Amino acid sequence: MNNTPAAIITIGDELLIGQVIDTNSAWIAQQLNKLGIDVLRRIAVGDDKQAILGALDEAILAHKLVIITGGLGPTADDITKPLLNEYFGGTMVVDQRVLEHLKDIFTKRNRPFLERNMKQAEVPDVCEVLFNRMGTAPGMWFRLQDVVVIALPGVPFEMVSIMEEEALPRLQQEFSGGYIAHRSIITAGEGESFIADQLQQIEESLPAIVKLAYLPGAGMVRLRLTGRGPRREVDEVLNKAHREIIEKLGKIVLATEDIPIEQAVGDWLRAHSKTLGLAESCTGGNIAHQITQVSGSSDYFTGCIVSYANSVKHALLGVKEETLAAHGAISEEVAKEMVSGALRVLGTDYALSITGLLDKGGESEILPVGTVWMAVADKESIFARKFYLPYDRKRNKEMATTMALLLLWKFMNKQL
Amino acid sequence: MNNTPAAIITIGDELLIGQVIDTNSAWIAQQLNKLGIDVLRRIAVGDDKQAILGALDEAILAHKLVIITGGLGPTADDITKPLLNEYFGGTMVVDQRVLEHLKDIFTKRNRPFLERNMKQAEVPDVCEVLFNRMGTAPGMWFRLQDVVVIALPGVPFEMVSIMEEEALPRLQQEFSGGYIAHRSIITAGEGESFIADQLQQIEESLPAIVKLAYLPGAGMVRLRLTGRGPRREVDEVLNKAHREIIEKLGKIVLATEDIPIEQAVGDWLRAHSKTLGLAESCTGGNIAHQITQVSGSSDYFTGCIVSYANSVKHALLGVKEETLAAHGAISEEVAKEMVSGALRVLGTDYALSITGLLDKGGESEILPVGTVWMAVADKESIFARKFYLPYDRKRNKEMATTMALLLLWKFMNKQL
Repeated sequence: MNNTPAAIITIGDELLIGQVIDTNSAWIAQQLNKLGIDVLRRIAVGDDKQAILGALDEAILAHKLVIITGGLGPTADDITKPLLNEYFGGTMVVDQRVLEHLKDIFTKRNRPFLERNMKQAEVPDVCEVLFNRMGTAPGMWFRLQDVVVIALPGVPFEMVSIMEEEALPRLQQEFSGGYIAHRSIITAGEGESFIADQLQQIEESLPAIVKLAYLPGAGMVRLRLTGRGPRREVDEVLNKAHREIIEKLGKIVLATEDIPIEQAVGDWLRAHSKTLGLAESCTGGNIAHQITQVSGSSDYFTGCIVSYANSVKHALLGVKEETLAAHGAISEEVAKEMVSGALRVLGTDYALSITGLLDKGGESEILPVGTVWMAVADKESIFARKFYLPYDRKRNKEMATTMALLLLWKFMNKQL
Repeated sequence: MNNTPAAIITIGDELLIGQVIDTNSAWIAQQLNKLGIDVLRRIAVGDDKQAILGALDEAILAHKLVIITGGLGPTADDITKPLLNEYFGGTMVVDQRVLEHLKDIFTKRNRPFLERNMKQAEVPDVCEVLFNRMGTAPGMWFRLQDVVVIALPGVPFEMVSIMEEEALPRLQQEFSGGYIAHRSIITAGEGESFIADQLQQIEESLPAIVKLAYLPGAGMVRLRLTGRGPRREVDEVLNKAHREIIEKLGKIVLATEDIPIEQAVGDWLRAHSKTLGLAESCTGGNIAHQITQVSGSSDYFTGCIVSYANSVKHALLGVKEETLAAHGAISEEVAKEMVSGALRVLGTDYALSITGLLDKGGESEILPVGTVWMAVADKESIFARKFYLPYDRKRNKEMATTMALLLLWKFMNKQL
């Protein structure tokens, strides 16, 4: 076991004031993990010279690989490039390939090439340039004795492109990491403690090379087995534990790998050659959005009617005006008429509908905020259920989406 | 200027292997920022005793406030609570209020109260308990000389609830932070370098208490002015610079505060008493989802037809079968018939449609992957535009959503 210890440093005031959520670190960590490189620490600092130098000093001292993102743009708040040049004792020189690429980008965008853009083609002469096909700021690969330091721009798709095309292949060559593997199980309908109790015996009998983690989320708990050690042994132990847990937990197992609920639903529909249509009110298209995040979802998903206004519920889904008047838009009756309408209008085997009140609004005087009605149907039967969501608008929307997909999954699996 | 220096430590293997994106830190940083508490560093470490202790030692040494999230659950991978107890030299004792709350939760959920759940009611006797109304793991407030250390569970909505109800009011009392304020401007249609060139003079004349940052994103650049110092002076300087920049950049200014594009569109619609309907194919409901993220969007948004299948484009939006056959689903003609259909069927003043190919699929043999057609219309005119998106499915979808909302915004503002 000689895993390479790594650190990730993200730079930017916007990270420290919370204006931007750091998705780069998670992506980088995933990629390094696949190479058997262990991220031991992630550090975020502001656009401040002393803070960056401090983080860099520490990271270099305790790790063999340091990846830095952010601070490479052309504007005055981006200070990383000259700082790294100084740190590694280099001189700034124009890189011809980068310069050609920059001029090409500016020509295509029909923009003048300005003096400050020339600076973007400069790199320290002590680094290897990591070419940035997607943008203007090149990546850099430095070496300090046996430590590799990689600097990348913070714009997510540029960072990804440089990592995939330039950095990861070199990292794979440089560090022959130890073997590490994961198995996941997603459960629905029981809490973390209940599951832990069920699995106590299995967990206690796990060998030291395997670790079990619980990751609770909305209505679901993800279990993750991580093994590290000799490849054959790790795979064997992981497969055995994975099998045992799945067997022990029985019908609360939603998926036997780490996939989102929309993919579990999609996989089921594809495997059974069935189609799905949606009628959304309060979730405003988010269920359709999640369903279509899955590549190939057009095989089973035909469409959705987002009926935000009652007039649209009536005109497009055939919800009766009497029903709306008698029960209100957030009611079992309307949810059921919406799902019947979706099944009919979209011509699918299954349909799902949802109507609710996610934050304070017109109906909040009669109904508690957070009241949601959902209905699922196939050609034979229809089922509706009410939920109360306690959070704010965005969190309630997310939660309602997950709950609705979970209800659909249970309905399809005849668990309701 | 006596801002309180703070650090955030997030704990969890899932953060280091990239399985989970850390949204907690960003939220906490935002809240502290409002109190004039400066987050100087964010650190993520795994579920490992030495790593946690190392991060804690460092953080306490250099900061006056340390906030820790994660690692407080009941399962075996959650080690933070006993570790903090040891670190601060306490003894674990059962907290009666927490115990009552736990039993109450288990009764409501109709679940047995297990031995391991009893452990969840235990807290170190050297902390003040921060009550967790939303979940089972209590927050903890420790003090080491003049440093405050707060430990919170990692589940986002539990963390938020404890912060809002328990921690933030106490922090406000404890630390009378210096004044810090921001002004933002969102621009569309020009790049970072062009804008920086336009603003060079203004930027150079800014006093030292104000800083200008550029945050580029899909088709837009956000500018953020940050000022810190005496309240009156900061506000004056910020307001002046904000006004000057808005004037200088003219019609590329999309918004004069930090709001997402869907809100800029929504604000315009409300201000002009107009309504909006959508017809989405490739974005699969994401535009509707974004529009309805804005509270009160039901005032101007009536609905959306997600016509993923061609049969739905025909049946619900009235796209002619001949048009589909002659030009294919991803074409100017289909985008225009979709937008006309949405305007008619949803009965709105404005409509937006989109059809495209976001990743490899059926039509990728004839069309390049990433081809997208969008159309916008009101009762007098209709306008269509083609884009090419170079990324993967999810990124293309996000980008297409932003581009479409931007096109709509320009159309409404008669900039096309």
